[in-house]
Amino acid sequence: MSATTPHPAFHDLAERVNNWGRWGADDEIGTLNLVTDEVVREAAAEVRTGRRIPLALPLRQDGVQTGMIPGRVNPLHVMVQINQELFGPGTVACSDDVVTMGLQAATHWDALPHVSHSGRLYNGRPAETVTAHGGAAFGGIDKPRHIVSRGVLLDVARARGEDRLAGGHAVTPEDLDAAEEFAGTRVRAGDIVLVRTGQVQVYLAGDREAYGYPSPGLSVRTPEWFHARDVAAVANDTLTFEIFPPEIEDLWLPVHALDLVEMGMLQGQNWNLEELSTACGQERRYSFLLSATPEPFVGGTGSPVAPVAVL
Amino acid sequence: MSATTPHPAFHDLAERVNNWGRWGADDEIGTLNLVTDEVVREAAAEVRTGRRIPLALPLRQDGVQTGMIPGRVNPLHVMVQINQELFGPGTVACSDDVVTMGLQAATHWDALPHVSHSGRLYNGRPAETVTAHGGAAFGGIDKPRHIVSRGVLLDVARARGEDRLAGGHAVTPEDLDAAEEFAGTRVRAGDIVLVRTGQVQVYLAGDREAYGYPSPGLSVRTPEWFHARDVAAVANDTLTFEIFPPEIEDLWLPVHALDLVEMGMLQGQNWNLEELSTACGQERRYSFLLSATPEPFVGGTGSPVAPVAVL
Amino acid sequence: MSATTPHPAFHDLAERVNNWGRWGADDEIGTLNLVTDEVVREAAAEVRTGRRIPLALPLRQDGVQTGMIPGRVNPLHVMVQINQELFGPGTVACSDDVVTMGLQAATHWDALPHVSHSGRLYNGRPAETVTAHGGAAFGGIDKPRHIVSRGVLLDVARARGEDRLAGGHAVTPEDLDAAEEFAGTRVRAGDIVLVRTGQVQVYLAGDREAYGYPSPGLSVRTPEWFHARDVAAVANDTLTFEIFPPEIEDLWLPVHALDLVEMGMLQGQNWNLEELSTACGQERRYSFLLSATPEPFVGGTGSPVAPVAVL
Amino acid sequence: MSATTPHPAFHDLAERVNNWGRWGADDEIGTLNLVTDEVVREAAAEVRTGRRIPLALPLRQDGVQTGMIPGRVNPLHVMVQINQELFGPGTVACSDDVVTMGLQAATHWDALPHVSHSGRLYNGRPAETVTAHGGAAFGGIDKPRHIVSRGVLLDVARARGEDRLAGGHAVTPEDLDAAEEFAGTRVRAGDIVLVRTGQVQVYLAGDREAYGYPSPGLSVRTPEWFHARDVAAVANDTLTFEIFPPEIEDLWLPVHALDLVEMGMLQGQNWNLEELSTACGQERRYSFLLSATPEPFVGGTGSPVAPVAVL
Repeated sequence: MSATTPHPAFHDLAERVNNWGRWGADDEIGTLNLVTDEVVREAAAEVRTGRRIPLALPLRQDGVQTGMIPGRVNPLHVMVQINQELFGPGTVACSDDVVTMGLQAATHWDALPHVSHSGRLYNGRPAETVTAHGGAAFGGIDKPRHIVSRGVLLDVARARGEDRLAGGHAVTPEDLDAAEEFAGTRVRAGDIVLVRTGQVQVYLAGDREAYGYPSPGLSVRTPEWFHARDVAAVANDTLTFEIFPPEIEDLWLPVHALDLVEMGMLQGQNWNLEELSTACGQERRYSFLLSATPEPFVGGTGSPVAPVAVL
Repeated sequence: MSATTPHPAFHDLAERVNNWGRWGADDEIGTLNLVTDEVVREAAAEVRTGRRIPLALPLRQDGVQTGMIPGRVNPLHVMVQINQELFGPGTVACSDDVVTMGLQAATHWDALPHVSHSGRLYNGRPAETVTAHGGAAFGGIDKPRHIVSRGVLLDVARARGEDRLAGGHAVTPEDLDAAEEFAGTRVRAGDIVLVRTGQVQVYLAGDREAYGYPSPGLSVRTPEWFHARDVAAVANDTLTFEIFPPEIEDLWLPVHALDLVEMGMLQGQNWNLEELSTACGQERRYSFLLSATPEPFVGGTGSPVAPVAVL
Repeated sequence: MSATTPHPAFHDLAERVNNWGRWGADDEIGTLNLVTDEVVREAAAEVRTGRRIPLALPLRQDGVQTGMIPGRVNPLHVMVQINQELFGPGTVACSDDVVTMGLQAATHWDALPHVSHSGRLYNGRPAETVTAHGGAAFGGIDKPRHIVSRGVLLDVARARGEDRLAGGHAVTPEDLDAAEEFAGTRVRAGDIVLVRTGQVQVYLAGDREAYGYPSPGLSVRTPEWFHARDVAAVANDTLTFEIFPPEIEDLWLPVHALDLVEMGMLQGQNWNLEELSTACGQERRYSFLLSATPEPFVGGTGSPVAPVAVL
Repeated sequence: MSATTPHPAFHDLAERVNNWGRWGADDEIGTLNLVTDEVVREAAAEVRTGRRIPLALPLRQDGVQTGMIPGRVNPLHVMVQINQELFGPGTVACSDDVVTMGLQAATHWDALPHVSHSGRLYNGRPAETVTAHGGAAFGGIDKPRHIVSRGVLLDVARARGEDRLAGGHAVTPEDLDAAEEFAGTRVRAGDIVLVRTGQVQVYLAGDREAYGYPSPGLSVRTPEWFHARDVAAVANDTLTFEIFPPEIEDLWLPVHALDLVEMGMLQGQNWNLEELSTACGQERRYSFLLSATPEPFVGGTGSPVAPVAVL
């Protein structure tokens, strides 16, 4: 990432959040190692009402992609059989479907090798381990075999008394502190943090262009906050995850580079946190059991996910 | 299903398990209505060790499909960007992927409109509501917005002292009773039952043809058992779910017709229950929290799913 | 087509251009029957200089589709192998690609069953012969096994002294007469007529939205002209083929209905006629050998085509 | 191609057929440069009867691919609209389709960068110019903008008095000489040669496995023959083009390396030459106008093609 090397900020941050070797030289799941059995037991203990809130956007051709990102196509769902009487006239009739979609097109997790910088992936592996033949040989989305943990909603917008953050708003560590205070819980090791900006409302209102750009999102200073808390993963309700256009000129996607490459922490994007925000407000608690296992695409650098919060 | 009309057995069974109207004329999720908040609270209480067992087969091009079912294609995973420096030389490099796959190709849920008989879907809706333009207008896989409940493994093979059932073995209500006895728990309303035959071992050993056919599977007599217990959903470790070839000559896919159309109960197929069987044996309990929310393909008649059992 | 029944114009025209039964009740290729061996011999005799002009737009993800027509996706071209040494290190390395695309997305032919009206396809066949399982059982794009004939460029724009026609311009029979006069040749039975509006310039200049709408195109009065001349097929350089929005309020796609259903005449769209216009102008002749065989998708209601004019 | 470097035969042959620089350092179409306007005029003059013979296999899901070549998927043709009344009830109804397919899956041309050896493509360009983002930056299938020339059928099987060659038969220069003698014409500069083995009959009879392997095909000695005659392109009726398994142990795909990389000559595969063989036999001549322009996939390393011979 030579273009970013002039930025001392990046290198200092990279050094401070780096987790390479922390779970061994062969580790492929990074901060998900922090989700221990004990964390999961505590997560299950968060269930009080049994209310379930789904966090995925519907998968449809008019999804959040606009064509701006080449190849990241919205789901094209087609029927290959419609009430087909496979075994002869009058027998049970079957309907079958096929989908073509970008693995990062909708509500998804980025796998660790989704980005590289300076020729390196998480844990120092060479970027060249991602190939046309098989995808990511290291750290693919099939490697974390399950993602179930305690979830915490940091409702940054609501904590600021806003319905949604403005396009130019970079979510800072101070915003996270305030949202944590608002939530009345403390983020712990192994937690999955959901950061709500409210930006997904723009898409839900029908404006796909404005949803993507300009977008509020995480500041380059947040990875250090997540690192300090030993968070297992972070997701939010924007297309770009981090603020876009970026805070620092010519420093593109620094949060991706810090989270995925340096820390080895999965990022989730395009999560719909609106209904969850309402529910947490109603129940006056912002922690819950979160189940968000990706589809195990072998070598995938991402995966659609249908997360559910259980309150 | 005129070819099946000569079978009094089918019609009697259909009548006995029919749930049309039970949750209202507009209901689109059937027995998933049985998963109440209370059931979910009890499900969370099943978590003891926090151990998580994933139940999905890896998604890859050499998946379980052989080409026998037209259009049901194994996942074709391709990279559309590999370490692409989107913002100019030296910037953070991104990798992106696209998949084309049959929604019923791998570990999946069948949605209620996946089959019709006699021109009808669940709740009496016309089969014609499944169209090329939009798929299933009624009861699509996007309608159950979350699937989290108590799971129970009925390890029929193990209960019979076998590693896997023979190809011609129809799993009967008596087998389910025995497996329940073996499990030491009683299946309750709202539970999701996982029926293990061991058949997926055949695929894991590399023989895709023999995995599909001949296959052990559920007997035409089992829907009544599930109906009596008010089960929310059932999944197993076979390609066809029910015994194949069928028990009764010329009565094709009767279990599909009874479960999906008459009862309105989702079916899961190609679930890998091997690791779960081992874990349950080790922990000597066969109930757990099960999280298995499908991807919300709008109008989908099925969806890949990455289920996780939390013990 | 009940919405069009109030339009006496449509019904009169339909009657006048109808070819049902003309080539037998089982005919599936319509006016392509007019391309006899003799026509092809004469077409070959049109070759004077041997200059070849390709008429297809490049196939790429930023093709002419904007998402307006659901499911008609631009080509998504992906590499599934890149310099893969299939037989071991150091052996010949192979690269392979896969494409996903709408058959009508780029430069293409509409097959006869691409549209139906009043429940009927060409030759009176029921619209229901197009199904999710196999596509068009009647008249699919695989049925005309070859399309090679004499081509005539009717350069309507140039004949009017314009570089391209305005968005609201309906190409009339009088325009075709004038362009024929300008061309200095007479359209004959079995010819394939290429009608140039110049509209494709809008796409080539980068404005996909304006390319599609508003668009010049063929008037509802032109099918009768083509019918009178016994033309074998017609193609032009627009997205919609006919003028769009339509000439007569609430009469949508009447030219499609007349050409494809009533006459049984293939239509070509998104053909790039710019280079051909220049070449014909230079050589002062507007007839040539045209080779434009569709890809034989079984049951396809259209196909991409890479037409070549040989002058 | 280190594994092949021990083979002096390969290096001698490579040197003798090499065309790098022959048409300039920037040339991307190789031997297609030999198709001059004059050649095309002569090709048009070959048309005597006007009879047209299509050479493409139908595009369908049960095409020639068996899954042996990873990612090279048979066409999956799906309907995305079926008689859809886009403009409201009673209006003209449209049907639309989408296809997913390997560009080399069916009757196709290999583009020059389809293979590399020793890190090089045709004209000495680095293999690295083929990338996941855009495919082949050099010599892609969109570069030859048209392929129309004189075609000559070398019916090797018929010339030997056989209906089809045996699986182990390597087509030698002597076979080509004999077939040329049988054809009664002499192959000239710019011709496209179609070599018939009859092997496609095996596929047409339903045996996909045996079609691919073992297969007759071109000997490693044939590129020199094509080079001596200055042939523009060669196609045949097999899956592998060259004899498979190969003639010389551990020398894999040498003909691909010689034709595509060294000579810069396009190869066609899976062409159905059966009907053409019959027609040429009936008309007692084996030369014709051949039109076989690939679909212009930008960066494609191959393309389906629907070739037509005009006799």
